[in-house]
Order: sequence, then structure tokens, then C-alpha cells
Amino acid sequence: MIERFWRGVLILSVSEEGWKTAEDIREKIEKEFEVPVIHSSYNPKILENYWDCIDLVIFIMALEGSIRISCRFAKSKDKDPAVISIDDRSKFVIPILGGHWGSNDAAEDISRLIGSPAVITTASELQGIPSVERIASFIIAKVENPQELAKVNGAIVRGEKVCLNGIDLNLGDHFIKGDDCKYVISIGKAKGEHVIFLRPLNVAVGIGSKREVNVEGVWKELSARVKEMNIQDRVKVIGSVREEFKEIAHKLKAEFKVFSLEELKGFSSPCITPSGEKLKSLGVPGVSEAIALTLGGKSSRLILRKVKVGNYATLSFATIEGD
Amino acid sequence: MIERFWRGVLILSVSEEGWKTAEDIREKIEKEFEVPVIHSSYNPKILENYWDCIDLVIFIMALEGSIRISCRFAKSKDKDPAVISIDDRSKFVIPILGGHWGSNDAAEDISRLIGSPAVITTASELQGIPSVERIASFIIAKVENPQELAKVNGAIVRGEKVCLNGIDLNLGDHFIKGDDCKYVISIGKAKGEHVIFLRPLNVAVGIGSKREVNVEGVWKELSARVKEMNIQDRVKVIGSVREEFKEIAHKLKAEFKVFSLEELKGFSSPCITPSGEKLKSLGVPGVSEAIALTLGGKSSRLILRKVKVGNYATLSFATIEGD
Repeated sequence: MIERFWRGVLILSVSEEGWKTAEDIREKIEKEFEVPVIHSSYNPKILENYWDCIDLVIFIMALEGSIRISCRFAKSKDKDPAVISIDDRSKFVIPILGGHWGSNDAAEDISRLIGSPAVITTASELQGIPSVERIASFIIAKVENPQELAKVNGAIVRGEKVCLNGIDLNLGDHFIKGDDCKYVISIGKAKGEHVIFLRPLNVAVGIGSKREVNVEGVWKELSARVKEMNIQDRVKVIGSVREEFKEIAHKLKAEFKVFSLEELKGFSSPCITPSGEKLKSLGVPGVSEAIALTLGGKSSRLILRKVKVGNYATLSFATIEGD
Repeated sequence: MIERFWRGVLILSVSEEGWKTAEDIREKIEKEFEVPVIHSSYNPKILENYWDCIDLVIFIMALEGSIRISCRFAKSKDKDPAVISIDDRSKFVIPILGGHWGSNDAAEDISRLIGSPAVITTASELQGIPSVERIASFIIAKVENPQELAKVNGAIVRGEKVCLNGIDLNLGDHFIKGDDCKYVISIGKAKGEHVIFLRPLNVAVGIGSKREVNVEGVWKELSARVKEMNIQDRVKVIGSVREEFKEIAHKLKAEFKVFSLEELKGFSSPCITPSGEKLKSLGVPGVSEAIALTLGGKSSRLILRKVKVGNYATLSFATIEGD
């Protein structure tokens, strides 16, 4: 499951011992899953920013602390990120929110990485079955009729068969190809009493780079990510502060746009990953995410949080919302 | 720890499987610890009533459900009851709130009773160390200067030495007899920079009984409880619907008052244990608790929730607040 957490993992620690545990977990997740991971000392402001735009929050602290903090941010089963609590000495890996929507699976992944037991308390029959919202995020699509979400998510939780129409994902026995069910999740028209319509979204890419440009290295990483996310035909625009990446845009038949650091100064979004000290001193809130989100339009959302390419470039993807 | 939970244990289940698990746990707790235990299907109204007047809440359901419900009621570390979550199949016993103030110890007690592991995530050095409020409840006393609570509880949590002055409790190495510390919990005058003053409270007793009165049986239970709670000189008034218990009041040098069921009809308090069907049909909200709380005065609080004596009587204790 963690390999699909493209919007990233946020690890929050409080004690010195917890910091070391968190760093160990950060390294292992990054190595195994290649998803963006941010580790920070806990403060409420950070969590407030990230809660709605991150896929997994891991608290490194005693369970009660994790719960009391989560209570301040939790909205509902369908909206909250997956949340896991691990104590400072990593005795237990405990999924606390989003169990059926990813945290149980993620806890088992982490359990395997660090060798501590996962404390799974939900009925195993429903493990790993994703919500409609998560299926939409897997294929990078927008839910066109959210008013049907509760009904179809309800059917999923009850273990009823749900059809996937025009969606090429293998999500286990609960989901059937086609549209011959009472509940359907569909790209395009479909039979079925309750149909969720998903609209695949186009994608904007932002590339950050040091002065010494390595086009080949960035292309390798970018094309691998595009393939993994199955959006080969959907990258419509690429932006960078370096002209040299124009040839990557050509290869993907996408537009290309050059940005100056000056243009990025004004950018702000609560969701973006904190930038390094150097950019901060220039008043620039990060490069690749700021570019991807600017190209994506006003309602654009990050779908691949900033990842590093070697030590010379960064890469981010955002949706194009057409506004 | 559970043996001191005189205000009772509330078990809340949601599923059929959970109901059976809960009944099993209820029986084992009642047998081992002789504390009042209430088991009910979860509904928010019940929890709202009990949250502030019960010592331990046990949720029988998946952890996430327990957390989302607790989020709606949790106030602060010092005010919330101990809270434990156990899944329907009792795979894990997880203290979720009140870890340092009793739920860790209680989880270990239950773990031993049902043979499932307790998931303890707090630093073990602080296990089982009670808060000032809990020490006050152990000796049935009122905190006279609550403005000092945060400071002294802080010292307890930090592991600093705290003095117990005039309080005969063995609470482990962190507490020293006398008043020669910076932080003191005291009955009466004491040195020390920060002193919490506790005032031992007098006690009112309510006795419910079937028509066939068994004074000897009630005396045996009542005197055992009085001894256990160390309030031999503090029972000031006893009430019942049966005259025959007057001789028990004499033995304790307490007043005695006879109540009619009619007098109890008007009584209401959010904290009292739901009464059986027969009393409900008469419009009486319970007998022993209603009497104890009525005798205790307006601000009276239950300190021993209704316990059964055989199948013929009930017994409750409340504080006398003198208003």
C-alpha cells in the first residue's frame, strides 16, 4: 500500500529517542517504497497544513499522545489520512485512523521493515479494501458525483460486490470488472443502480534543478514515475527553471514553460513541502511543487509530492484542474 | 488498580460477537475485583452520562471506533476516565486514554484475566503512578486548592519526589511520607513550596433491599467495604426503604433515615446506574444510589457505585458535601 502513497508520508516525533526511531523509519520507507517522506518535530501548525494533503501520518510517541493530537484534526473516515502510532522504542506499530482505507496495510508494511508487531484490530475480511476516494487517487481521477460516495463506500465496507468499469486495477475479489453490479465505479457511462463517475485528470509536472543540469537522469526518474502512475498520455505541461528540460516535454508531447525564481516568490499553498534553507533565504517556497501547482491552475492538487532525483534535481506532479 | 475503581467500570460493545466478549470480561472483572461493572450496547447518550462519573471505560470494538468515539468526549489528561479498547475477538488490550493515571495498570490486569497481550506504549518508569485527583479519590477526599493541581501533577509526571503528609497509602518509591519535599500532598498544614490540601469527606450510605430483609448479609458486605475504603469513622448517615437496617447505622454510630419509594420518584442524576425493569416500571431511578446521593446533599458524588449483596440487596456510598 505505501508504494501508492505518492502524496507522501509525514513522520512526527517529539522526544530525542523518538527522533532517532523516526529517522530509522524514514530511511527504510524511502529505500523500500520510493515515496516522499517528511520527518519533523511535532507542532500543531505543521499537522494542520498537511492533514488534508498527505496520505499517511506516522506519530512517533506514546499512543495516548497520538490519539489526543488526532482528535484535534480528525474529520471523518473518508476524509482523514491514514494514521499510525509508533512508540519511541518502536515496540508496536498501531494503525489508529483509516484502518480500512490503508493504515492497516501500511502498518503491516512498516512492521515488516522494523520488525515490530502491527496491532490490527479490525475484521480481516475487509483489510486492504480501498474506498472510492482512494481508487480515484490510484488512477488520478476526480469523483464527478460525490453525492453517491456514501452509498458506494457503504457497499464496499459491507463487503458487497462492486464493479469497476473502464478501470484497470486489481483490487481483490470484492471488485469485478464491468458494470453488471448494483454498485459501479466507472469511467464513462455504466449500468448499475448506484454509479460513481470518475474523470481521469491531466497532469502538470514541475522540475527543480541545480545549475549543473542532468537531463538524462531526470528523464529516467520522470518516465519511471509516469509509467508507475499510468499517466503516459496525460502529462500535458512541464515547467522548470532550466530551459534544458524542454526535450523531456517534447518526448511526452507536452507543453514546456520556463519559470524564473522571481515568479515563484509569490507562490503559497498550505500543502507544499517545506523548502531547504537556501531557497527559504531567497523567499522561494520550493520549486518543483510550486511550478506543478501553478501550471495546474487554481484548484490543482499535488499527486506526487516532491521527490529527489539524485542530489541534483526534484520532481513533482499536480493535477490540471482547468481553472 | 481495578480493585480501587469503586465508581465502576463501563463496558460498551457494538456487535454480537463483541457482546459475548464483553460479557466474558464483565464476569471476570466482577469475580476478581468486586467492583461495579455495567455492560451496555454503545450509544452516545450513555457515554455522555457516565464519562465524568466512572473510573474506567472499556470499548469492545476495533481501535479506530474507540478512538473516534473517545475524541467526542475527551477533555484532558487529568479529567478523563481511564479508557481501554479491546477488539471483538479480544486479540489486544489497548489502553488509549489515562495511561499514567490507571489505564495501563488496568489493561495489564485485564490482559492477565483474558490471556491477551496489553499494548503498553508509555515509558515504564511512570507506570502506575497516580495523579493527585486519583490519590484524593483513593482516600475519599476533596482537593481544597485545585489551582495547584497542574504543578504537582507535573512534578509527578516528571518523576520528581512528592511527599504524602498524613496520608497512609503505599504508592511506590516516588512518594515519601512526611512534608519535607518541594511538592506535598497533605491532609492539614504542611511545609513545602507547592502543597495540595486534601480534605477527607464524610460518607452517606444507601441500602436497597427486597421485602425479605437480610440484615446480617448486608452488614457483612457493608462493613467489608467500609474497611477496604478506610472510612470507618466517616459514615455519618445511612438510608434505606426498610426500617430493619437501623441497627447497622447504630453499629457505625451513624444517623438512620427511612425512605419511601414515593420520595425517590423525583430523583434524578446523570451518574446513577440504570435501574432494573421493575423499578423502571414504578418510575423509580434506582434505590441505593438515589438514597446515598440524596443524603449526601446537592453536590454529593457517588464513590461506590451500586453493588449487589447476594440477590437480595444493593449498596451505594456517596460523599457528604454539606450543602
